[in-house]
Amino acid sequence: MIKAGIIGATGYTGVELLRLLAPRNDVELVVVTSRELAGKPVASHFPNLRGYRVPDFSSPDSAALKECDVVFYATPHGVAMHSVPELLAADVKVIDLSADFRLKDIASWEGWYKTAHACPELAAEAVYGLPETHRAEIAQARLVAAPGCYPTAIQLALLPLLEGKLVDAGHLIADAKSGVSGAGRKAVEDYLLCEAGESIKPYALAGHRHHPEICQQLALLTETPVGLTFVPHLAPMSRGILATIYAPLIDGAPLTQGASPKKGASLSKSATESVAEKLQQLFETRYGEEPFVYVLPQGELPATRNVRGSNRCEVAVSFSEHTQTVIIMSAEDNLVKGASGQAVQCMNLMFALPETTGLDNIALLP
Amino acid sequence: MIKAGIIGATGYTGVELLRLLAPRNDVELVVVTSRELAGKPVASHFPNLRGYRVPDFSSPDSAALKECDVVFYATPHGVAMHSVPELLAADVKVIDLSADFRLKDIASWEGWYKTAHACPELAAEAVYGLPETHRAEIAQARLVAAPGCYPTAIQLALLPLLEGKLVDAGHLIADAKSGVSGAGRKAVEDYLLCEAGESIKPYALAGHRHHPEICQQLALLTETPVGLTFVPHLAPMSRGILATIYAPLIDGAPLTQGASPKKGASLSKSATESVAEKLQQLFETRYGEEPFVYVLPQGELPATRNVRGSNRCEVAVSFSEHTQTVIIMSAEDNLVKGASGQAVQCMNLMFALPETTGLDNIALLP
Amino acid sequence: MIKAGIIGATGYTGVELLRLLAPRNDVELVVVTSRELAGKPVASHFPNLRGYRVPDFSSPDSAALKECDVVFYATPHGVAMHSVPELLAADVKVIDLSADFRLKDIASWEGWYKTAHACPELAAEAVYGLPETHRAEIAQARLVAAPGCYPTAIQLALLPLLEGKLVDAGHLIADAKSGVSGAGRKAVEDYLLCEAGESIKPYALAGHRHHPEICQQLALLTETPVGLTFVPHLAPMSRGILATIYAPLIDGAPLTQGASPKKGASLSKSATESVAEKLQQLFETRYGEEPFVYVLPQGELPATRNVRGSNRCEVAVSFSEHTQTVIIMSAEDNLVKGASGQAVQCMNLMFALPETTGLDNIALLP
Amino acid sequence: MIKAGIIGATGYTGVELLRLLAPRNDVELVVVTSRELAGKPVASHFPNLRGYRVPDFSSPDSAALKECDVVFYATPHGVAMHSVPELLAADVKVIDLSADFRLKDIASWEGWYKTAHACPELAAEAVYGLPETHRAEIAQARLVAAPGCYPTAIQLALLPLLEGKLVDAGHLIADAKSGVSGAGRKAVEDYLLCEAGESIKPYALAGHRHHPEICQQLALLTETPVGLTFVPHLAPMSRGILATIYAPLIDGAPLTQGASPKKGASLSKSATESVAEKLQQLFETRYGEEPFVYVLPQGELPATRNVRGSNRCEVAVSFSEHTQTVIIMSAEDNLVKGASGQAVQCMNLMFALPETTGLDNIALLP
Repeated sequence: MIKAGIIGATGYTGVELLRLLAPRNDVELVVVTSRELAGKPVASHFPNLRGYRVPDFSSPDSAALKECDVVFYATPHGVAMHSVPELLAADVKVIDLSADFRLKDIASWEGWYKTAHACPELAAEAVYGLPETHRAEIAQARLVAAPGCYPTAIQLALLPLLEGKLVDAGHLIADAKSGVSGAGRKAVEDYLLCEAGESIKPYALAGHRHHPEICQQLALLTETPVGLTFVPHLAPMSRGILATIYAPLIDGAPLTQGASPKKGASLSKSATESVAEKLQQLFETRYGEEPFVYVLPQGELPATRNVRGSNRCEVAVSFSEHTQTVIIMSAEDNLVKGASGQAVQCMNLMFALPETTGLDNIALLP
Repeated sequence: MIKAGIIGATGYTGVELLRLLAPRNDVELVVVTSRELAGKPVASHFPNLRGYRVPDFSSPDSAALKECDVVFYATPHGVAMHSVPELLAADVKVIDLSADFRLKDIASWEGWYKTAHACPELAAEAVYGLPETHRAEIAQARLVAAPGCYPTAIQLALLPLLEGKLVDAGHLIADAKSGVSGAGRKAVEDYLLCEAGESIKPYALAGHRHHPEICQQLALLTETPVGLTFVPHLAPMSRGILATIYAPLIDGAPLTQGASPKKGASLSKSATESVAEKLQQLFETRYGEEPFVYVLPQGELPATRNVRGSNRCEVAVSFSEHTQTVIIMSAEDNLVKGASGQAVQCMNLMFALPETTGLDNIALLP
Repeated sequence: MIKAGIIGATGYTGVELLRLLAPRNDVELVVVTSRELAGKPVASHFPNLRGYRVPDFSSPDSAALKECDVVFYATPHGVAMHSVPELLAADVKVIDLSADFRLKDIASWEGWYKTAHACPELAAEAVYGLPETHRAEIAQARLVAAPGCYPTAIQLALLPLLEGKLVDAGHLIADAKSGVSGAGRKAVEDYLLCEAGESIKPYALAGHRHHPEICQQLALLTETPVGLTFVPHLAPMSRGILATIYAPLIDGAPLTQGASPKKGASLSKSATESVAEKLQQLFETRYGEEPFVYVLPQGELPATRNVRGSNRCEVAVSFSEHTQTVIIMSAEDNLVKGASGQAVQCMNLMFALPETTGLDNIALLP
Repeated sequence: MIKAGIIGATGYTGVELLRLLAPRNDVELVVVTSRELAGKPVASHFPNLRGYRVPDFSSPDSAALKECDVVFYATPHGVAMHSVPELLAADVKVIDLSADFRLKDIASWEGWYKTAHACPELAAEAVYGLPETHRAEIAQARLVAAPGCYPTAIQLALLPLLEGKLVDAGHLIADAKSGVSGAGRKAVEDYLLCEAGESIKPYALAGHRHHPEICQQLALLTETPVGLTFVPHLAPMSRGILATIYAPLIDGAPLTQGASPKKGASLSKSATESVAEKLQQLFETRYGEEPFVYVLPQGELPATRNVRGSNRCEVAVSFSEHTQTVIIMSAEDNLVKGASGQAVQCMNLMFALPETTGLDNIALLP
């Protein structure tokens, strides 16, 4: 029985951790903290948990947390870094869903989050919690920095292509569409139903905090400099992220061998189909053994509804003959594979459990 | 008093034409046709029209239509081309909201629509109904082919850049998000609330009928070949289109004069800002006199809710230093500026009325 | 030209007043106040107003307001009562969209709003702004208390029945469903898209502030005591109120003359149909001349989408043989006929303009 | 291992049965039929099932179905009655989610469904599949008629009151609000996102097929005639039913003993509170042992979001002093407790499994 704690469990990633962990027989939730709601039943805040065995909210208390085998941080940025060292010292494994340990470049982190980092050395140690790229390290880690929702969707889309040096890493475009829960459970005007409903809009053109995280991780996969234009959009729905990625195929990439007669020229129709098929094979091979990345059959396209409430990321790949661009589309539930489900997947790895434990529910459709 | 007829007025562009025309004092709706609903009051199909002066649905009858000064076709493709010649012969002006007269390349049209074109010579004559590019011709036209919703949003985004030869026309990407009404009022499973709600997905990766229309019109603006990757998405909302366009800045474009030290290198921060400012000026200048294209102040971003029910297209321009890409975002109501409002704007021009007549209502927010 | 001011124009009733008044040629908006946003363009807060002639937000300033012919209060309760006397003294007409002058029973008002009323004598003078019951008084009034959204929908549903003494006024049930904009533009967690979307729930079972207002006005129509059970619900949409009202038919009511053989017995099938027809006639007669109350043909039912953005209230009446209950359903846009449109309708009356001036736009569908 | 078949698995109750049954270790799905989609993978129709072990769609084939231990009918009405006898003869247990065996009054059934019933004797034998009233019979049944979504919500709301003879069964009002999935996965215009979204409306005032089912079952609980006015509404959401029930408290009911001084008079404030408390106790006692009916704490109110994807029905009870009416509100997921979850709950009972097996997932919030 794994004794688990959740710090800052009043937001959407918090309730999602509770939804995934509360029914498990091999996990016991022993501490669920909230400064604001300490003493109140969790169900008073999250009515879906009425009647389930979950401890009442308590104030963060290091003694109780040190009794845990694993502690999840579902806190805003800047919280985890202050108390993680103490937990690690007490041999508690930590999975941080916030941004505190995602960036290796501390100066960059401090620039984005406008505060000094409290423990840069742990940022160096922390393992990036994307099992598809860091499975073995996660299994050995005592501190995992679980990726954000956009980074997960975008990395899973680009991974096979960058690993294969097939696209121009310096000219990537990620046009991403997120449900409103990605903004958290904050009483902010922009996220009111009357403001965010029945409308779609781009945001954060001037820079998004997930941008350096994505670039840092993509850079690990390629030798050439990463250039990424990332435009997030707010879509009128609660859950789900769809990322549509545009990556220019490199002239003379292995995929086009024998197909592209000369540099700069467009591929013929049959060559285009050949490229599309090779891309499909590449993705199917790369993700064939991945339990939570599902490469769609050629010609089928992802939709966020297909993964609502599940830990699955759907990926499809296509090729545009018009601009010699690879198009990759990935859909995930931002609160599951994009946050809490991924954190639980990491926990499973860290405790040597089957990776899919507690994560095999089918998406809710419709 | 302009006597107007609407053919095939049972869909969303039909009801929108009725909404815009019925309250006008200078237009009299004399014929509203529907084979299926002939004899029924229009309000039995469109309850929002209860109590307004609109004739009952009637079967298409050339005699009655020939009495009109102007006839709008709100029909599926392949209908208008059979009866437009007769109306033109009777000196009726025609505004076609369908695709029948948009493409000059008849072979391409026949390929996309899988049928022989009935009057290629009129396709040659027809004026493309985008006032921002064809105002003078529209004013003189007897047959106007009103653009589709995606083409309007994408052209208005790219116009200033292609006119100025500032971006690489061969490598354009248009990532567009449409509300479900773009698919029309068809009883198709995919557009049920339970299917299209709370989800976002790409579609038509293999090719969209609007693609050749967009390319044809963009090609008029540039001397270099147009290469456009166009990925439409279905967003969980009724109305609205948001297009996010990515266009690579040409090395050595006038915008970067004195800024970019050498080909291929990235621009400095201040050079980036300088480019952004010049782009802003370019757009503001280009659209300064346009009544229905609104260039947002630098830093502000469009949202489809801002234009719901109005004939306005909001446009914002930005520049990504990461990939030297110009990002243009345009938002319109697909049923107004993307269809019926634009058709009415054309009618105003064709009858020498002030262009904004009947189109100056404020968007419904929230 | 009517010089108009709006106090507290930062919420949804404020933007709706602006939408309705800004395009008018006979009204000039001269003051639009907001303490918080003073000095900023209105369009920075309401992007749909970009480019329209509306003065910037200013601090409430009695000198400027006294120059107005009419001032609208779109403020929270407890604001208008402090400054209305001064405006009236300066011969400014006032239309208050808040609750300050709706209740004649000052003790009840003070109980609900937990504050002392600043000018009870004006509460006594204020005319209740429902044209369907107080048209003549409104036309003569200098102070109008415009009704709330639920009261409008419920009163219009019950009016003909209570005027005719046909239903048991002591056992009325109003089950109302409101869009989220009814709660105003407040950054409150409950109204986030992720909280209020894709869900429906009742609220305020312990008592709703609109309850005494409804009962006060219904009591004017009947000699017997009013007993009303009112259950509001929050529906997952932005705009619209649907009220479903259940009123027991009085035994031996004129409608059932010759139909109901003896007290307590059920009506026969044909008698039921006869009652339904008589109810239909009653409503059609009562509202035949009303420009903004539309009685649906027998068998048709209202939907909030039919009145989105319009000042119309759709009403349908039916009769349940199972419990001898009259069922009345009314649909309105809570921000138009339920708030700002109604206020403008009152203004038209107060300035002897045609009542429908500026209010004849067709609802936006879809 | 229970071998299970599903007939007609292409609708929303079908996919929900698959979602609930596919992950179970004690159930093997052996046949999933669809005439239309025979031969195709289930995941081609329901993308959320990609990668799960579910047999391909097959044509209904009695041999294969007879090999099952249990067969679910997720068919439209009029299908099950033709093949159920053969399955029962082969010792297959049957759970019918359609209406074929719900009504005991065959004439009424034939009136509503406009067809002759094929096996009236089985309608007589069939056990009504509401465990809260028929648990023991279900456990022994070979044919269960699972209730529809409205009947479940309304019966669970009224059960304790009718069992206790506390309300006037002849004057009940059920105002119910349903998500669009209640209409099934049918390509019908009314259920398009553009038609059903952002709007709420009543429907079926002239009579709903669920009405006789509800009345039949309520009549079992009371000796006095049942009179029920039932008004269903379509709410702009996918899933969920909220029923708001109004039931007049009987004068001199045990609850008001010692509280109500004389017939017809209103209760005092403290007497009202006393009634409310007694109602609360009544409900808590009645449902204390029920695994899937959750009585909310006094003062809390249900919302459909709290039960999305779960088999739980939330119930709250209140009392209106204004009309001496008991108000009961029940919320369920129409596809789970209102259909497929309830069917699985019945299966668990029929196979002597713990009743909650496979049904203990937590609702998806947000």
